[in-house]
Amino acid sequence: MNPETDIGYMRLALSLAERGMGWTSPNPMVGAVVVRDGKAIAEGYHPSCGEAHAERIALEKAGGQAVGATLYVTLEPCAHHGKTPPCLDCVLASGVARVVIAMEDPNPLVHGKSIQALRDNGIEVAVGICEKEARVLNYPFLSSMLRQRPWVTLKYAMTLDGKIATSTGDSKWVSGEESRAGVQDIRKRHRAILVGFRTALTDDPLLTCRETGDPPPRQPLRIVLGGIGGLPPSSQLAATSTQFPTLHVLSGQRWQNPIREPGDVEGLLITTQGSILHELMKVLYEREIDSLLVEGGARTLSSFMEAGLVDEIYAFIAPKILNDFDALSPFPGEGGSGLMSDAIQLQRVSIQTYGQDVLVHGYLTEL
Amino acid sequence: MNPETDIGYMRLALSLAERGMGWTSPNPMVGAVVVRDGKAIAEGYHPSCGEAHAERIALEKAGGQAVGATLYVTLEPCAHHGKTPPCLDCVLASGVARVVIAMEDPNPLVHGKSIQALRDNGIEVAVGICEKEARVLNYPFLSSMLRQRPWVTLKYAMTLDGKIATSTGDSKWVSGEESRAGVQDIRKRHRAILVGFRTALTDDPLLTCRETGDPPPRQPLRIVLGGIGGLPPSSQLAATSTQFPTLHVLSGQRWQNPIREPGDVEGLLITTQGSILHELMKVLYEREIDSLLVEGGARTLSSFMEAGLVDEIYAFIAPKILNDFDALSPFPGEGGSGLMSDAIQLQRVSIQTYGQDVLVHGYLTEL
Repeated sequence: MNPETDIGYMRLALSLAERGMGWTSPNPMVGAVVVRDGKAIAEGYHPSCGEAHAERIALEKAGGQAVGATLYVTLEPCAHHGKTPPCLDCVLASGVARVVIAMEDPNPLVHGKSIQALRDNGIEVAVGICEKEARVLNYPFLSSMLRQRPWVTLKYAMTLDGKIATSTGDSKWVSGEESRAGVQDIRKRHRAILVGFRTALTDDPLLTCRETGDPPPRQPLRIVLGGIGGLPPSSQLAATSTQFPTLHVLSGQRWQNPIREPGDVEGLLITTQGSILHELMKVLYEREIDSLLVEGGARTLSSFMEAGLVDEIYAFIAPKILNDFDALSPFPGEGGSGLMSDAIQLQRVSIQTYGQDVLVHGYLTEL
Repeated sequence: MNPETDIGYMRLALSLAERGMGWTSPNPMVGAVVVRDGKAIAEGYHPSCGEAHAERIALEKAGGQAVGATLYVTLEPCAHHGKTPPCLDCVLASGVARVVIAMEDPNPLVHGKSIQALRDNGIEVAVGICEKEARVLNYPFLSSMLRQRPWVTLKYAMTLDGKIATSTGDSKWVSGEESRAGVQDIRKRHRAILVGFRTALTDDPLLTCRETGDPPPRQPLRIVLGGIGGLPPSSQLAATSTQFPTLHVLSGQRWQNPIREPGDVEGLLITTQGSILHELMKVLYEREIDSLLVEGGARTLSSFMEAGLVDEIYAFIAPKILNDFDALSPFPGEGGSGLMSDAIQLQRVSIQTYGQDVLVHGYLTEL
């Protein structure tokens, strides 16, 4: 097979996989295409956690036409019984002659097992086609598998003089309407959204994903970090806590009893000698939350940076100037060496415009 | 004539005008095209101050072919004797039947005079085609004419957390190589470059335009603002002051005598009860400097903003994070109302990328 053709079909499979965005967690997004005589005869993707896997859907659509065909799949087929029977069996039964796989299963326990089984059954297997794209697509899944913690994304909006709020804390609005609509798409990609207690008080945010769609987006777990008591009962978060899950994380030894929280807000007391944020990462991992979006405020953004927990950054920049010494910068941290050359550098940076604003997006981590 | 055709030829004339960028000051950039039977038969632009005007060059090229033709010119032809004879005479003598003009002469004393004279001589005249583009191209010229002060542009480079230097003042380098090359093109468009005294000490800049070209760019006047004594003799500015004009502006009553400055650095003492910056604007206007680029540091950028003297901004943003509370923001000013909605909004914003950096460009002034 021509390697360029392989790349073309794998890109198709990746774009199918993306349709599951926001729905598959804690499963990965996966796409599959069955190709016969140079033609894509069946497609599939994993639509949401609990539903059928991509390769099963594609192979069932192909039916008897799959015999002798090539299966493109963005992730190594599973070999174990989960919520659905193993895909390996279904691939073997389909009669395909060749399987092209973007990336191996990252789970070290099953890693490569299906590939070996396919080869043992006389099927030709190619691995690593569009691997980078496949990994980027599933960073949250990879983070759970490889690091036992969620993938952490930071999002903020600042002025052209680098301020996320005025000296009085006013931040409505830094960015324009188009940017704020773009944020909904970012929220949709994350299973939890976190803000600091101060931001919860000042901005009184709702922290839901307000993208419309059919089906509507899965709502993220809303997390407030810190404070010295329960959330204010009058806050939007408390008022909607019956409808949307809400977690208030408090730290320290001084609380003997669970904090009294309004409505259905869940209080979580973390007592540790170590890092509260690392402890919180463990809790989220255990709850199968594979992606966390941190939306501020400044001290919260800084604390994630200082804990070494930042994987990805979305920074919206609005073309306006405050000229206010006391206004808040997004990262009021302790700094480092004092050398510009030691600044933390984003990788694979991309730029998008939203109305008059510009969005800078990049990564601090590769998995 | 079809209005779309008029726009097309005027855009051609505007692009010709731009070839004089950096060379025509204190004259405006002007371009001209002679069109006959739907074909551009001659082009011209004002190459530099002291040389022939655009319409004269184009009409001389056209010669007898100009009779009955249409002349497109980006600015109303001059009616007065300056360094060259008036273009109005040359247009009248050429025999053109129609003249299309992007904008009237902004000088209130001559404004519309040539247009009237052309009409009085039976020539059809259309005015205002691509007027906005023509005005933007010549904002420095318009600023001199209409406001008796230079057009002021601010340029800075900041990190993705809004810092132009670390807490120790290190700023080498915020932006990447491509951005720093882009700065040379911005410098080329300005007749003077200003930095604050502190920046002159910390960064020891050369402040020349290092664009290559044939002819090489005209070098801007280099200005240092403030301080309590002469420039350091060991500074790059002082060391090159014989080659490149350098002005050191000091303010206040306490200096009885002119400051002793090294090399050929010119010392200028401004004593005023009012605004030093406004006083400096008058001096630059008198010296026929129609455009000033302010390159920092932070206090200098802020003081121009607070004096209401900022017309245009170039902000380079590099995808790196300092996470340093004490690092410098570009505008450490006194702020305003404390409301985000009162931030100063840039207009006609455009975005460009330079390597990994993004450049946000916009205007605070329309002329």
